[in-house]
Formats: sequence, structure tokens, C-alpha cells
Amino acid sequence: MTARTDQTRTGPARTIISVDAMGGDQGPAAVVAGIAHSAQKNREIGFIVHGPGDELKRLVAKRKGLESRCEVRHAPDVVTMDDKPSSVVRHGRETSMWSALESVRNGEATVCVSCGNTGALMLMSVLRLRKLPGIYRPAIAVMWPSQNPQEHNIMLDGGADIRADAKDLMQYALMGASYARNGFGLERPRIGLLNVGTEEHKGRAELREAYDLIAANARTADFEFVGFVEGRDLPGTVCDVIVTDGFTGNVALKTGEGTAKLVGDLLREAFAYSPLSRLASVLAYTSLRRMKKRVDPRRANGGVFLGLNGTVVKSHGSADATGVSSAIKLAFELAQSHFTERLAARVASAALLDQGDSAENTPDEEAQ
Amino acid sequence: MTARTDQTRTGPARTIISVDAMGGDQGPAAVVAGIAHSAQKNREIGFIVHGPGDELKRLVAKRKGLESRCEVRHAPDVVTMDDKPSSVVRHGRETSMWSALESVRNGEATVCVSCGNTGALMLMSVLRLRKLPGIYRPAIAVMWPSQNPQEHNIMLDGGADIRADAKDLMQYALMGASYARNGFGLERPRIGLLNVGTEEHKGRAELREAYDLIAANARTADFEFVGFVEGRDLPGTVCDVIVTDGFTGNVALKTGEGTAKLVGDLLREAFAYSPLSRLASVLAYTSLRRMKKRVDPRRANGGVFLGLNGTVVKSHGSADATGVSSAIKLAFELAQSHFTERLAARVASAALLDQGDSAENTPDEEAQ
Repeated sequence: MTARTDQTRTGPARTIISVDAMGGDQGPAAVVAGIAHSAQKNREIGFIVHGPGDELKRLVAKRKGLESRCEVRHAPDVVTMDDKPSSVVRHGRETSMWSALESVRNGEATVCVSCGNTGALMLMSVLRLRKLPGIYRPAIAVMWPSQNPQEHNIMLDGGADIRADAKDLMQYALMGASYARNGFGLERPRIGLLNVGTEEHKGRAELREAYDLIAANARTADFEFVGFVEGRDLPGTVCDVIVTDGFTGNVALKTGEGTAKLVGDLLREAFAYSPLSRLASVLAYTSLRRMKKRVDPRRANGGVFLGLNGTVVKSHGSADATGVSSAIKLAFELAQSHFTERLAARVASAALLDQGDSAENTPDEEAQ
Repeated sequence: MTARTDQTRTGPARTIISVDAMGGDQGPAAVVAGIAHSAQKNREIGFIVHGPGDELKRLVAKRKGLESRCEVRHAPDVVTMDDKPSSVVRHGRETSMWSALESVRNGEATVCVSCGNTGALMLMSVLRLRKLPGIYRPAIAVMWPSQNPQEHNIMLDGGADIRADAKDLMQYALMGASYARNGFGLERPRIGLLNVGTEEHKGRAELREAYDLIAANARTADFEFVGFVEGRDLPGTVCDVIVTDGFTGNVALKTGEGTAKLVGDLLREAFAYSPLSRLASVLAYTSLRRMKKRVDPRRANGGVFLGLNGTVVKSHGSADATGVSSAIKLAFELAQSHFTERLAARVASAALLDQGDSAENTPDEEAQ
């Protein structure tokens, strides 16, 4: 699959992004508002948007200049947050999510963006786009605010699969390095393996095995392996990419979100405490907003599914227009850098290093 | 073991706390300063302090009125943060940590407080104090700032053991409930089981099994089981006690600490940005300090080892005098409430419910 550009329908050469308009908490109006924002900022993007045709056409028509950039694809059904992934893939052919992935599958679009049910999106992506040759478990890479120069670290797996063995973790390192290179422009990303202690004698057996596998691939795959890291290094500066299984990664992600929210709530309470503190908060407004912008999840809004034939960006379920627009921006950047093809080449070259085990890594549709 | 009080050596009836003065990052001076602070605040505590005799006697003599409250017990060796736990238990008989635990073992003191190497302290505690009958894996319960009325939630296991099966998790629920009752005065604590999603079909098999076991014990053990919770509920209000394995718990703990530190650092940067923001920070000083106090790890400074014949409070390795004093306060409160005996009674009554499996739960010294 290559970054498809379309010169006939949408005017100048454009990168086409497929957007699932449904399934987010804020409904299709917020998604179309995000599309309109991105369309204004970047003339090089064209859109295919999926959902109930009449409603979407009305929403698109309201935005000046959007109709010529945005094709509406009718899909009557919606995947809700409560739907079971296994049931969705059996009965979900009429959903906007299925339709949005279909545009990537048939080469009309380069990247798919959805705010919908993560489990359903992952399972459907695996079934429709299929895994890259050599990949057993695809992963969700999430962004984490940090003090590194790029302002975000990457963590994977954020929750695609609750299991991961040593070889999966090694592939997460390869995929995470490739993402950091193409998404953040880091030439030689630093990779850390999440554990409970930095001493080598600590931790689970599969982590010690993964340690050796990742170390063995560092030179060929052009990343630096910093060894074991701890939870405190997720927002830290010792590495750019943190590798872990999807259970631990998901707990860490939600814990980080919860902690940031608690600190924000306490800060608000502290500033509401007295007339003097309310005055202080007025003066501190700009400073507080500057800080908030750095940790605003809407601005780092996009879990990226790695290990598939095609790129899928999962936006936060509660994303508003700003959040959707951030996810589209990320999708565009990944499309421009030919990320899918580069990642596939990396995985293939690592598989060559490791031919003895390749039989056990044939694509498998039972990942969920 | 009962809360021992000593009426001869230290004057009026006192609860004796055994303190390991060594192994913390800030050295014995910070520990003695913390002891002095607690001694001043609370006349009912007496101390046995363990470490190099001459140095400790000098430090104690400097503090007015402390000599009569504080017995120094000479121990020449120190467990460092880099020592391997298995090596410490073989060769550590002359260490202050060993000596501090010995005072609880022989009934001189009710609770032991140490800032030292967590892994070594846990393994030594298991070997010297031994596990409660019926407990297979002891756990470290840590406090987590939250918006609940008690201002903190309890999470266990914070890292005593990287494994936990369904039955261990059920015992963590029992022990956590008992701790919440005696340490926080919550009559009927709400227990949550940490998972990646709140739907029952998600997560690992042992978690679904643990779910049923915990639910079955809720009525007898007098707690409310709220079911599965997510990482964001650690600082949240849906439950008071969060149960998880020590690997996940330790990652979550460090992630929370790292995130809180990042937000603090970004806040400092935001307020240092311009002359106006520096002025705002002066006015906001009291509000910011009020907020900081709520999330200050020194004020919730004490991981408590649960499941042993005796209570051990593990203070943060970098604890200063304030941190040590907080840990001593917690130790005192647990001693006053006869926590060890009550916890033992709870575990014993749960074991009665479940006699079929009791054979596999004999105490085992190989926990680490």
C-alpha cells in the first residue's frame, strides 16, 4: 500500500485520510468540526468520512469549502462503546467503523482515524487489514507527555492485547522505534523495557528473555536499548519509547491520566479556597494554561495501531474537535513519511535475523 | 503478639516502636530527627533505634529529652539499596535492619519502621517474623492520594511479589480491608480489583477467578466489593482499596509518582516563564503549597507489610525527617488498634470458609 493521492476528485495532489465519524462520545458534529479545522490548516489532506449519509452531508455542507475536500460514504450502523468486539466483527459490516477501514484496505485512503470502541477497532483492523508478515501481536502505541525535547514519549502496548511474550516485546521495540523515527523524527530512538526494578535480577522471566532479544536487535534496527526502566520513566527523559505488555501498559496509561486529573482537580480547589487565592489564579491564568497545554491529552490524541497492513489512528473516545484534528494531523504525518511501508521493511529485516523461529509467527486471526 | 507497653524503662505506659536508623538515602541524622519530631508530638511512643551505637548515641544526645525515650541498639552493618535480598538474608545478621526486626520478633516492640532496601526488608521480614497462618504471599500496602474523604486510597500489592494468583488476590482484599478499617477508621471499606476494563469479559483468567472469590468473601469479611476498577480509579473515589499483583502495582505506583513529578516540574517552568508569571507565582504561593501538601508523598509515607506475624512499615528510601515522622505516626496508629491481631483473626476466619484448599497455603519461605 502506498500513500495514495487523488488528483481528479479533490483538486491538487492530496493525501486521503479515512475518518469514522461515529462512535465517539461527542457525536459526528465534533468529528466533522475536527475535519474542518484540519482541512483549513492543511491544504494537502483530502477526506473520506463514514457514517449516516444524510446527517454527514448536512454537517459537511455547513462548513465552508469542505464539500470539495470531503467525500461522504454512507454507513447506517454504529459500533457503541458497550459492544463486544467479537460480536461487532460478526455483525458489523454496515457500521461506519467497518466502512472506514475498508477505504484503507482497498487503497483509497492511507490512514484510518476513529474515536470508537478500541477493542472492536483493533479486532476489526486485524481481520480486515491483516497483520504484517512476521507480526504475531499488533500493538497500540500511545503518547505520553514528557520532558524530552520532543515533549512526548511513546509507550506500547497501550492495551491491544493483555498478553505479550518475549518475542512480542522485541517486536514492540522494533515497531516503537520505527514510529519514533517517522512520527517524531528521532534518528536513533532510545528504547526502555518496563519492569519493577532496574536491577537485572528483578522481574518476570519473559522480561529477562525480552531484554536479551531487544539488545540483540538494537544495532541492526538502529535504536539504542537503555535496558529496564520503571514506571517513573514513562514521563521521564531516560528513553523515548517504553515497551510493555498491554495489560501493564493500559493500567499505567489510565493511572497516569487519573493522577494528572487528580492534580488538576486539587489545583483548582486550592485556587478556589479564598478571595486572595482566587485573585492569584487570575494572575496565574496564563501560566496555568501554558502548563495545561503541555499535558492536554487532546494535543497528544492518537493511539496508533502498529503491526498491520495499513495505519489506524485511534483517537480518544471523548475527543472534541481539537482532539480529532490532532489525530488527523498525526495520521497525515505518518502517511507522508510512508510509515506503513517503512515499518513493514523493519519487521521483515528483523525476521531475517531470526529465521529459526519464523514458523511460529504466521499471521493469526485469533489475537483478541 | 500484643501491643507491648513498657512502664519501667521509659516512664509512663508507652507503645514501643523499633526503628532501623540506616539504609535510607538521607542517613541516620534524618531518621533521628524524625524520631525526635514524633517524640515531641506524641508522649505515648517509646523507641528502640538500631544502627552504629556511637553515632546514634551522639545523634540522640543532641535532641533534648530524647535519651529517656529512645534506646540505642548497636548494629555495625548496613543493608544498602544495591544489596541483593537473597545475599542480605544469608549474611545480614549484623545489620540494623535485622536488629530492628528482631525487636518485633521477640516482643520488645510492636511495629518496625525502616527506610531501607524494600526487597531485603520484605524477605527478611518473611524469614524472621514468618507469615500469618493461611497467607501464602505477604503484600505491601501503599497509600495513594485521592479525593475520598480519608484523602488517601490503599493499593496492594505495591511490589512485595511480582506474582499473585486468584487466591492471593482474595487475601489481599481481606488484608486491605482490615488495614483500611484499622488505619483509616473506615467501617465497611470498598474494595476494587484492578483490571484493564470494567466489563466482566475483559482481562486475565486469574482476575475473573479472583473476582468470584472476593465477591464470595465480601459479606463475611465486612467489606463492599465494587468489582473491577481501572488505573484511573487509583486516585479516584469509587473505592478505598485497590487490589492487584505486585508487578502491576509497582508499575502503577511509580507511574503515579512520575506523573505527579512531571506536572510539578511543568508547573514550576510555567511560573518561571516571564516576570508576570513569576509575580503570579508569589501570589499563588499559598494555594500551590496547599495543593502540594495534599499530594506530598512524605505525608503518606509508609508502605505497610501485610500478612506477617508483626507489622512492618516501610518508609520511602528518600524520606527526610518529615517522612520518617509520618511513618512513625502510622506505625503508632496501627499498634494502638491492635492491627496485627485483628488482621490475623480476619485471615483465620476466611480460611475457615475455605478449608478444602488450606493444604496448599502452608507458610513457605520461598516467597521471594
